Amino acid sequence: MIKATIITIGDEILIGQIVDTNSTSIAKHLNTAGITVVEKLSIGDQAEQIEQSIARAVAQSQVVIITGGLGPTKDDITKHTLARIFNSRMHEDERVCNHVHALLERRGITFNDLNRSQAMVPDCCTVLFNAYGTAPGMWFETENGAVVISLPGVPFEMEHLMEDEVMPRLKAHFSLHANVHRTMITAGLPESMLAERIEQWEDALPKWMKLAYLPAPNIVRLRLSAYDQEDGEAAREAINTEFDKLHNIIPGHIVGFEGATMQSLVHEIMRERGVTLATAESCTGGAIASLFTAMAGASAYFMGGVVAYANKVKRDVLGVNYDDIMTHGAVSETVARQMAEGVRRITGADYAIATTGIAGPTGGSEAKPVGTVWMAVATPTHTVAVMRNSGLDRGQIISRASAYAIELLYKELKG
Amino acid sequence: MIKATIITIGDEILIGQIVDTNSTSIAKHLNTAGITVVEKLSIGDQAEQIEQSIARAVAQSQVVIITGGLGPTKDDITKHTLARIFNSRMHEDERVCNHVHALLERRGITFNDLNRSQAMVPDCCTVLFNAYGTAPGMWFETENGAVVISLPGVPFEMEHLMEDEVMPRLKAHFSLHANVHRTMITAGLPESMLAERIEQWEDALPKWMKLAYLPAPNIVRLRLSAYDQEDGEAAREAINTEFDKLHNIIPGHIVGFEGATMQSLVHEIMRERGVTLATAESCTGGAIASLFTAMAGASAYFMGGVVAYANKVKRDVLGVNYDDIMTHGAVSETVARQMAEGVRRITGADYAIATTGIAGPTGGSEAKPVGTVWMAVATPTHTVAVMRNSGLDRGQIISRASAYAIELLYKELKG
Repeated sequence: MIKATIITIGDEILIGQIVDTNSTSIAKHLNTAGITVVEKLSIGDQAEQIEQSIARAVAQSQVVIITGGLGPTKDDITKHTLARIFNSRMHEDERVCNHVHALLERRGITFNDLNRSQAMVPDCCTVLFNAYGTAPGMWFETENGAVVISLPGVPFEMEHLMEDEVMPRLKAHFSLHANVHRTMITAGLPESMLAERIEQWEDALPKWMKLAYLPAPNIVRLRLSAYDQEDGEAAREAINTEFDKLHNIIPGHIVGFEGATMQSLVHEIMRERGVTLATAESCTGGAIASLFTAMAGASAYFMGGVVAYANKVKRDVLGVNYDDIMTHGAVSETVARQMAEGVRRITGADYAIATTGIAGPTGGSEAKPVGTVWMAVATPTHTVAVMRNSGLDRGQIISRASAYAIELLYKELKG
Repeated sequence: MIKATIITIGDEILIGQIVDTNSTSIAKHLNTAGITVVEKLSIGDQAEQIEQSIARAVAQSQVVIITGGLGPTKDDITKHTLARIFNSRMHEDERVCNHVHALLERRGITFNDLNRSQAMVPDCCTVLFNAYGTAPGMWFETENGAVVISLPGVPFEMEHLMEDEVMPRLKAHFSLHANVHRTMITAGLPESMLAERIEQWEDALPKWMKLAYLPAPNIVRLRLSAYDQEDGEAAREAINTEFDKLHNIIPGHIVGFEGATMQSLVHEIMRERGVTLATAESCTGGAIASLFTAMAGASAYFMGGVVAYANKVKRDVLGVNYDDIMTHGAVSETVARQMAEGVRRITGADYAIATTGIAGPTGGSEAKPVGTVWMAVATPTHTVAVMRNSGLDRGQIISRASAYAIELLYKELKG
């Protein structure tokens, strides 16, 4: 098994100023290629800690990927620390220097000494050319055969380097086995009930297969993993066989596979059937439209939507009856229904989703506390509406209400 | 200095299936209270690795916070591993048991043996009551005075436990000094030019102050940090003094402080001036509306918006001239202008933002490649429009175009 350790460097991670998404993306790349990540580590911009962490990582894994600390400014010390660890002098890389020059020129920025310093690299490393930024990646090899790779922390640049430079080289350098993961998405059974229902199946799984439960609002994902398989296809087949068995145990509860989400399931159904969708959002404020339009190909069915935050917009754009807003409140079943029907009418879409609720932190009352959300789905034949209390925190209310509303549409589409 | 190590447990983190946001939130809580996070570690659901990591964490820090692995299913082993480390038997906690019972009853779920197992806790720990979920938090103390805290991995439950249980106890348990951070947001100077411009100031900073550069699209954040200060107020004063000096060096380039974003700056201005906003989004698909409505208090100025994905919606809802769409294309200056003016008209808002572009991966041409985005801002007196190429990847194009469009509005508001 080829093992990897990922090290992300930056005080901003340790003080909680940013979420580390780089290590997630790197882990996905490595795992897909059959390299098993045994540890992810985040540390500060301190030479001693960087040195110790790399030493420990090299001791426990053959691949070490480091991101961050490669900027031109004084707080970034990764490159010099690596040069010291590998006991290497630095030189200016001409290709990198020309590239940084050209890149800055295009942006209208004057090339200065700090920019020049970005083209300095340790003699002993192989430069991984960063077409999208000024800091090059670096590939080092230790005496006992481990590979240490340093990448810039800018997610976009790191991502391109992983795809274009790091992964092809790792695949060429190591003889890799396969890591196989498949995820089944279940709905309608809470985690503990699901576990009870599938206990016998779980106990009979081959020892080399690992089962994980990943609960989320409304759904539980079940992941079967097989690491370091010489015959990846056979492992995949065996996992598929286990999932087929599971299908017979909980037939009505399987809603999808892999990274599927409620919106991606709706996305597939809409494209398949050639029907169209519109949204009318109050409390979710564009989040539902965003979830659909984030998926490539959404334009095939997504007509558009209205974010009707103000009552005036509910009335003037969506045609919601103003008296109903005054009588029942903006957060009411009738307003949710009229919003869905209204956006269906003005866009000509076949289906429409609407939400209206109290996202907080203020605006709640005893009768309608913060978190109260009415959601409606209008179809070519009828309109349904439900109320769900969607949590306590503004962000949580928006994301949960969006999930519930999309699930309501999914149920209508599935009949 | 009280040091902390954060350990997040779960194979789903190591294979890149989920982004670890828990450790970010925990780091923020600890840091704010004056506890310095020296390392964040993510490991798999394996007893041996959990034991080794906790041992290492206890050796290097007085506070160890662990999340994950507390579910009722077999893949979750954190609790038993902790019992073994602390050489402790387990017992059923009556309060937790009753709570789990009541929680499940409310959700209509039958209480089973797996649920009962969640009420089992090691004898030697203090239970941290989880009002929002079934897995209790646990507080252990080692012989040499370190605290080891285990929390559930569900972000919402973890968050409440940190706020309500963990932080008050840590503040009572340790005598804490202050960590002080202030962040200044600059715009208009790329990182290397900024560094050159402020070099003298940087070199003259007191040794106990740490400067970090955090570049992002369009902006560079400068953070000054002071750790473990006995007199937090004095440190804050000293940092403010340094920022005042900086203000004299780059007066025109400071756009905000702390976690401010372009949308939060617009948010503040709009609320202050009592003016209103609407959005008309094509390629950003609701992302701009989402960014504003994610902020509490947005309803004071945000009227709403239209996601005009289909040309039909641009025409029928926003009143964009159909011939112009046919002649110039949906991604054109005139359509962007008409969208902004159209949504301003139908909502009655004072200001409007519009975007129309090609988010890809398909739909690009030589003249208008993927990433081409026209954005417009309509004000009470005029309309401006600009074209920006916003990247290569769909998600990046949507988020960058949103940022650029909001920046365009910000500039208009600032005159």
